[in-house]
Amino acid sequence: MAKNKKLVEAITAMDTDFAQWYTDVVKKADLADYSSVKGCMIIRPYGYAIWENIQAELDSRFKATGHENVYMPLFIPESLLNKEKDHVEGFAPEVAWVTHGGEEELTEKLCVRPTSETLFCQHYANIIGSYRDLPKLYNQWANVVRWEKTTRPFLRTTEFLWQEGHTAHATMEEAEEETLRMLNVYADFCQDFLAIPVIKGQKTEKEKFAGAQATYTIESLMHDGQALQSGTSHNFGDNFARAFNIRYLDKDNTHRYVYQTSWGVTTRLIGALIMVHGDDSGLVLPPRVAPIQLVIVPIATHKGGVLEKAQEIFTTLKAKVRVKLDDSDKNPGWKFSEHEMRGVPLRLEIGPRDVENGTVVLVRRDNGEKLTVNIAELAQKVPEILQEIQDGLLAKALKHREEHTSKAYSLAEIKENLDKKPGFVKTMWCGDRACEDQVKEVARASSRCMPFESEHLSDTCAICGKPAKAMVIWGRAY
Amino acid sequence: MAKNKKLVEAITAMDTDFAQWYTDVVKKADLADYSSVKGCMIIRPYGYAIWENIQAELDSRFKATGHENVYMPLFIPESLLNKEKDHVEGFAPEVAWVTHGGEEELTEKLCVRPTSETLFCQHYANIIGSYRDLPKLYNQWANVVRWEKTTRPFLRTTEFLWQEGHTAHATMEEAEEETLRMLNVYADFCQDFLAIPVIKGQKTEKEKFAGAQATYTIESLMHDGQALQSGTSHNFGDNFARAFNIRYLDKDNTHRYVYQTSWGVTTRLIGALIMVHGDDSGLVLPPRVAPIQLVIVPIATHKGGVLEKAQEIFTTLKAKVRVKLDDSDKNPGWKFSEHEMRGVPLRLEIGPRDVENGTVVLVRRDNGEKLTVNIAELAQKVPEILQEIQDGLLAKALKHREEHTSKAYSLAEIKENLDKKPGFVKTMWCGDRACEDQVKEVARASSRCMPFESEHLSDTCAICGKPAKAMVIWGRAY
Repeated sequence: MAKNKKLVEAITAMDTDFAQWYTDVVKKADLADYSSVKGCMIIRPYGYAIWENIQAELDSRFKATGHENVYMPLFIPESLLNKEKDHVEGFAPEVAWVTHGGEEELTEKLCVRPTSETLFCQHYANIIGSYRDLPKLYNQWANVVRWEKTTRPFLRTTEFLWQEGHTAHATMEEAEEETLRMLNVYADFCQDFLAIPVIKGQKTEKEKFAGAQATYTIESLMHDGQALQSGTSHNFGDNFARAFNIRYLDKDNTHRYVYQTSWGVTTRLIGALIMVHGDDSGLVLPPRVAPIQLVIVPIATHKGGVLEKAQEIFTTLKAKVRVKLDDSDKNPGWKFSEHEMRGVPLRLEIGPRDVENGTVVLVRRDNGEKLTVNIAELAQKVPEILQEIQDGLLAKALKHREEHTSKAYSLAEIKENLDKKPGFVKTMWCGDRACEDQVKEVARASSRCMPFESEHLSDTCAICGKPAKAMVIWGRAY
Repeated sequence: MAKNKKLVEAITAMDTDFAQWYTDVVKKADLADYSSVKGCMIIRPYGYAIWENIQAELDSRFKATGHENVYMPLFIPESLLNKEKDHVEGFAPEVAWVTHGGEEELTEKLCVRPTSETLFCQHYANIIGSYRDLPKLYNQWANVVRWEKTTRPFLRTTEFLWQEGHTAHATMEEAEEETLRMLNVYADFCQDFLAIPVIKGQKTEKEKFAGAQATYTIESLMHDGQALQSGTSHNFGDNFARAFNIRYLDKDNTHRYVYQTSWGVTTRLIGALIMVHGDDSGLVLPPRVAPIQLVIVPIATHKGGVLEKAQEIFTTLKAKVRVKLDDSDKNPGWKFSEHEMRGVPLRLEIGPRDVENGTVVLVRRDNGEKLTVNIAELAQKVPEILQEIQDGLLAKALKHREEHTSKAYSLAEIKENLDKKPGFVKTMWCGDRACEDQVKEVARASSRCMPFESEHLSDTCAICGKPAKAMVIWGRAY
């Protein structure tokens, strides 16, 4: 049976077919599998362990900034979804509808939440009465559903896992501060934990969230030069508060509308990890997010002392790093490939000669470098090397992004740059949607954001030549 | 505005109306709120924090017994749900159906998972090929939906949160061992962590899970004498493996079907916590599951030194217990009631006189006992008292259960016992469903289980007088 074979087969080379390479890695690193439901994936133990690490780290950063977790219903009645005009226009075309419950047809159909603004708003209208009730800083970890036509594991799936923060504040200033605070939490998390450098900026009117006054984003660049929107944070102003009548009695005895935000990141971050750090041998995981940081592979275990020493090392290192001792009966070469495919940052090889010498060989996944290390020094060396790998991956990704970022001064140049060397293209922009539409049509790229760290490239819009209002970064995106 | 008022109002007394008392506690302890979707609740921050503690503890116990987390899709195609006959018969009447996605009608309708056996089976059929692939020990934390007619927060809701373990084994013996292992994990967890004593036993044919060969259960008794099924563990034998063709190539080169189990507990455990430990002042939480184990209430904070000392104590205790310093501007009496309502196990009062004396007053939530303790001894005393509270709550619940457990030797006696003093009633039973149906009709009670710790009460069935096969525990249940 074909399914019995579990060879570490070669995967498609990145440069040959990046999309196929991605799919191969997802499958062969045991991250996810397809299900019988179109567009829905199965997240396998190794993939889910990465998500658990992401969750734990983000959750502690959310709690450190004063947020509390809650859980809202999976379903939204049609009438509730319809309450905020822009929002429903944005989401209604892509929701799944429950029309029957038990054996009866429902009197009002329910949509499976594509996002939960409307549910949080209804709840906030019930529980917020006074200025003393503010701010409300809620978050939820949940599954959401958006009926997507084209899907790819992690990057775009009909159902995905995410967190969605929803907050309510007394003033617009506080809402804006929160929106940016959470954008920074995301950016710092991506850089520190996932070793993914991101560009922070504001979305254009065309690209902002349905119902938001302003959407901020973190944008990252994949190995193939395509952009990935990696997290967004929205300031709703009082749009939703007016639609849902969320008011509080202020200190001066006046009723005022609250100001709201929402912000989210998804299992798509796992797609980013694959496409930013991976190589032709498979996944490459930054140590901080890796379920296994070090794998110990004993060699020639029939020789006395090897397995015992490997176990001793395992016991010593267990308290310091996430370590696995692979004492299965597969041969060492197979194990090497398997753990390389799964992106384990560091491999420790120990054979009879090593036991004699009191040393082991450490092999770095990121650059293949081999180091002979004294066993007595491992507890100190391993965490140091893991930190070097973490830092090295971020530096490499940053260098890649810089090498794939260009400037352009005309529409033709935007297209030419993207065709020649896909990446980010910076231009000045007049602020008109017509120019964005043109870039889409001609260069097949969208505005990623107006970055906070901006440059003045010229006085005029690269597309239409009218006076420029802002610098924009363009890219072809997942 | 009524919603602005947040008084600590008296709740209905338990003995007056237990159901109303329950609802009052859920609302006034800020555990959950109603949503606009029938039967779906909003789990508020305090309720969700309890769930997070339950999750973290169970998850570590699952991992310690070798289980891995995965995530399966939310939807099950109708044809997949139909694959195992008993299973679909059990669940089809109570599922929600998605019939439209995006703006199109689906060619095959999808049910929102009521449980995920069929999805796990399909995945197992894909990934299990050889004896080397076994056992598979998977678990998932997820939301599920069952279209319930009558709902109550936590106890029975249309959508609820749970974990579902799904495992596959080479032999029936291993599956049975796993089924019982996880039942024991649940039982130990309930007793150690939630201070809820449970009776372990096997469900009768009538009460077992749709598609299982054997269902084991942990049953607990609420304060009002009603039973609550608190967790179940199922042995499927090879039922599902045959329906889904899940086979492995054994060492002897023969294809064999796998043997499977599943097991789950839900947010219903929060309902159990409320109804086992609560009293007329509200919730009473066992310290191990309590989001806040100790609340510090400073008194007469305008007097110099009180708040400073309270903060000092907070800082010292923070490393030892989950502590909150309530320095809000509400008056102390209000704070006392509020934290009693929310079931905080221990309250620390500190006023000017205490600061002078170098002491504080500790007040236990479980029995109201007040203790004057030297500040210097707090770091040692507080964890000790919390342990005493934890142990005391378990002992009290156990005593309550014993006082509400009786024996009966006839159908009339079963009814009489339950009418006079609701609780568990033990009888001998012939094993026939007809007798169970009679108990249901006459005494409005169902068989909770055939307990592992059984007694020989007589030779004959209490209902029909035929030879007895087993002892059964009956009860009126949530």
